[in-house]
Amino acid sequence: MGQYTAPLRDMQFVLHELLGVENHLKEMPQHAEIDADTINQVIEEAGKFCSEVIFPLNQSGDREGCTYHGDGVVTAPKGFKEAYQQYVEAGWPSLGCDPEYGGQGLPILINNALYEMLNSANQAWTMYPGLSHGAYEALHAHGTDELKQRYLPKLVSGVWTGTMCLTEPHCGTDLGILRTKAEPLADGSYAITGTKIFISAGEHDLAENIIHLVLARLPDAPGGTKGISLFVVPKFIPDANGNPGERNGVKCGSIEHKMGIHGNATCVINLDGAKGWMVGEPNKGLNAMFVMMNAARLGVGMQSLGLTEVAYQNSAAYAKERLQMRSLSGPKAPDKPADPIIVHPDVRRMLLTQRAFAEGGRAFSYWIALQIDRELSHEDESVRKDAADLVALLTPIAKAFLSDNAFIATNEGMQVFGGHGYIAEWGMEQYVRDARINMIYEGTNTVQSLDLLGRKILGDMGAKMKKFGKLVQDFVEAEGTNEAMQEFINPLADIGDKVQKLTMEIGMKAMANPDEVGAAAVPYLRVVGHLVFSYFWARMAKIALEKQDSGDSFYKVKLATARFYFAKLLPETASQIRMARAGGATLMALEADLF
Amino acid sequence: MGQYTAPLRDMQFVLHELLGVENHLKEMPQHAEIDADTINQVIEEAGKFCSEVIFPLNQSGDREGCTYHGDGVVTAPKGFKEAYQQYVEAGWPSLGCDPEYGGQGLPILINNALYEMLNSANQAWTMYPGLSHGAYEALHAHGTDELKQRYLPKLVSGVWTGTMCLTEPHCGTDLGILRTKAEPLADGSYAITGTKIFISAGEHDLAENIIHLVLARLPDAPGGTKGISLFVVPKFIPDANGNPGERNGVKCGSIEHKMGIHGNATCVINLDGAKGWMVGEPNKGLNAMFVMMNAARLGVGMQSLGLTEVAYQNSAAYAKERLQMRSLSGPKAPDKPADPIIVHPDVRRMLLTQRAFAEGGRAFSYWIALQIDRELSHEDESVRKDAADLVALLTPIAKAFLSDNAFIATNEGMQVFGGHGYIAEWGMEQYVRDARINMIYEGTNTVQSLDLLGRKILGDMGAKMKKFGKLVQDFVEAEGTNEAMQEFINPLADIGDKVQKLTMEIGMKAMANPDEVGAAAVPYLRVVGHLVFSYFWARMAKIALEKQDSGDSFYKVKLATARFYFAKLLPETASQIRMARAGGATLMALEADLF
Repeated sequence: MGQYTAPLRDMQFVLHELLGVENHLKEMPQHAEIDADTINQVIEEAGKFCSEVIFPLNQSGDREGCTYHGDGVVTAPKGFKEAYQQYVEAGWPSLGCDPEYGGQGLPILINNALYEMLNSANQAWTMYPGLSHGAYEALHAHGTDELKQRYLPKLVSGVWTGTMCLTEPHCGTDLGILRTKAEPLADGSYAITGTKIFISAGEHDLAENIIHLVLARLPDAPGGTKGISLFVVPKFIPDANGNPGERNGVKCGSIEHKMGIHGNATCVINLDGAKGWMVGEPNKGLNAMFVMMNAARLGVGMQSLGLTEVAYQNSAAYAKERLQMRSLSGPKAPDKPADPIIVHPDVRRMLLTQRAFAEGGRAFSYWIALQIDRELSHEDESVRKDAADLVALLTPIAKAFLSDNAFIATNEGMQVFGGHGYIAEWGMEQYVRDARINMIYEGTNTVQSLDLLGRKILGDMGAKMKKFGKLVQDFVEAEGTNEAMQEFINPLADIGDKVQKLTMEIGMKAMANPDEVGAAAVPYLRVVGHLVFSYFWARMAKIALEKQDSGDSFYKVKLATARFYFAKLLPETASQIRMARAGGATLMALEADLF
Repeated sequence: MGQYTAPLRDMQFVLHELLGVENHLKEMPQHAEIDADTINQVIEEAGKFCSEVIFPLNQSGDREGCTYHGDGVVTAPKGFKEAYQQYVEAGWPSLGCDPEYGGQGLPILINNALYEMLNSANQAWTMYPGLSHGAYEALHAHGTDELKQRYLPKLVSGVWTGTMCLTEPHCGTDLGILRTKAEPLADGSYAITGTKIFISAGEHDLAENIIHLVLARLPDAPGGTKGISLFVVPKFIPDANGNPGERNGVKCGSIEHKMGIHGNATCVINLDGAKGWMVGEPNKGLNAMFVMMNAARLGVGMQSLGLTEVAYQNSAAYAKERLQMRSLSGPKAPDKPADPIIVHPDVRRMLLTQRAFAEGGRAFSYWIALQIDRELSHEDESVRKDAADLVALLTPIAKAFLSDNAFIATNEGMQVFGGHGYIAEWGMEQYVRDARINMIYEGTNTVQSLDLLGRKILGDMGAKMKKFGKLVQDFVEAEGTNEAMQEFINPLADIGDKVQKLTMEIGMKAMANPDEVGAAAVPYLRVVGHLVFSYFWARMAKIALEKQDSGDSFYKVKLATARFYFAKLLPETASQIRMARAGGATLMALEADLF
């Protein structure tokens, strides 16, 4: 049961009406030829693939899960392999990849739009190509020409998939204490030995080879994060013709039984003298890996957006059909035994929460993907630099704010169904279970908040934050005399001021006591997330106001959703600001053994 | 894996130091002889049973789930039946039951303390005896003498279990549209036909008979909720000796696959001319059922408290052991490769959130259970009346506020574990899945909020609310000149004022437009829940202040947790008040078909 239709109208609104993507692409030599029609055709085709091929496997994949057959053999749920073959045959893996290695060279933005839809349809399945794309990016950025020639064409075509092997049993967040060893061999390769856990898509039957990117230590490496190197470790070592050859000493030991994303194999990976080749420089593996991590963090944002959208679609459909109780203000469907539950204000609150989080998240995440394209491809270096700063600043918000929101949204979607939401039949509880991992992996949301506040904001004395603040300020000034925009501009300006004051206050406290950063970071990220959403909702409201009399109800709904956002969701900041300001004293008062 | 130890010290603190339960019981003739030692012995024994017998079945029961064998036969997970037999042999089912039917006649309060521990240990298992107790209460309050003699001794001993059969495929919240029919038979019984769904503990192998309490309509019944009657429908019709006899036409058709509480069978129950006997008066079945519903709603509060406590215990233990990263303010365990994660402020926030919700929830829910005892058993009629009003007022808060809090708390507990929280091994994700049902069943939390605001508060022009307000006011006045208490009394008085103003404001709006009740109810309940918690945390802080120099670190921790509550959790009200005040306009703006 359940349904998913790609929200093409809203995607096009964001791409063309909000972001004016075509004009931006004209400033990027490698993308200058791409027009709106091409973009629309791509996302339309992708939407069909998602609805027709992978959405039907979402519930069955969750129910069946992956299977460990012993001796390192894992199979994905029924239908996953065939769907992946169709995906490869249609060329989707290559969408955003470098034409030099067989890619289609489309902007990151379009690839992210594809991933929104893939994740709405089936997050567990999407992680297989998603992690491959991460491996592609790290190799593309840091691999030698030889490594690139050997691996990239296969990752680009999707014939091979990839993984990221970071976590070990005793270390996840703290990669500085990882123990996997890499011994240099005479032929310039390395023998890698250790145990990795929580390796998503670590073993499966979708592709003929799996390319692991593995963090390990050289024998003479210094301790901590400055002694970690990155290696490419293929499951089958490519032979002289580039085909899968000798079986390498990297093997899945078991798969985890977990809360959600059952269709993706979460593996223990044992490396027993496995042959690997270094990517990037010795002891600088974390830097190389961070290319993947940043992409992966925005990827988690797209997973979260995808789940928010599909939860909304299903709960809105249910709320219009399910009959239960009468409206408090009198029967609305007197010919029926009860009113559809969408008449009840709190049901609407739950629906609009999902909708506002989905549409705000889409505007923000597409915008940030566009900034990545500008960072990589804009003709002007200063634009590239500004875009890079904005991406660095906002990546932790895309990861943590959108995943928090997705957990709220999928829970609201489930709640609309009442008891029917709790049973598996309707699929709503799966969205909650799948969404829950997004708050944890690729750096927990606490880690994201520390990255935002400690590194990205206090770390450069607010320089990057000023660049985003400038965008907000310019918009506030431009619309300051527009009477119709006051209802959006005033709260936007207000939350902007509050963020500024709050940042200053925490910065001062943190100089006296660094624990104040940790005490404030999580609520602080929620507040900045709302500043970002307020900015995009105000911009969307402006467009909707201008077109509300066009006869297209799309703009009426957009405007109503904007008003809902400012009335009912932005007020979360009132509490979060208080919690952030309350500081660390009550957290740190007790000795650990008194817990 | 995982652990549970009954929090006896805190339970005793609440029972004796906060509530002074012994003095209250002296005013109840039937409980006047019960002393503190007896109470402490009972809860200590119960705690052992929970830790040793049913906690070890929690994870295995979740993993295995219940099994439908066809033809109406269902078995619970391995070990559930044997544990239930031990439970019956030890006499636990009879703890709070009427001695006339074999009960031990202990206060409801003690039975609720037992249920906190049972639920910490295994919510799915506990629902079997929990629902039986609900059936006992409805029959005890409304059954004829003959029905009581036939069924109560077996329910009291636990040899038979019970269920509540309300929901049908097309109606859950809206019982007014239920369709199950009851045709009178010549012998004074009824032939009952219809389909019930979501029947917890509806079929299983734990007991020799199952007694269903079923809502159905008489042939001449008026439509809506005023045409519903209640019937007792045994699986096996008791023979002349009171033993299970003829198999009745009530049969489980299938069981649900669901998000959590896997160890409890959620059944479709088909009634095919099943023989039933009326409980209470014709067409007044909902009134009779509400005896069960109120107990069940407080029961959901105890489930939520139980899960909050066990999530806290496990995450606190993990946070003291798991080494990851250094404290931002310098290494705290320099001899180890990293610091235990409890040094990090945000980990402490997650732990203290759980702890403050657990201890606040324990104080509140034990207090409300004591009010039920006062309502039922106090020698003074005016005390009984006041207690009844407080119970009526606060039951929806016990159900919804504690279950919301449990979902927050179990999620924080899981988050402390990072990726290890998402996998099944540590048991943390199960607590989240189990806790999620508590926000739905026995009336969704939206329904609770409408009950609170619409019926319990606006419905009597705030009369019941004034009774709780008086308790708060008296405490504020008594401590108003106590310098040391200002940090607790001031925010308590403040939130009390805010609730009063908010209630007036919504009441005025609701007179013009009833949808304003629905638009405000959910955030309003959160605000009143925090008023209740502020009251109990301030009272607990007073005791802790007085005893902080006693040398017992218990009081130091209590005081620190109280300060955390006021600094970091109560501020949630700042947002919820804004959301409640924002009203219904942005919710109701759009036509339903635009969603």
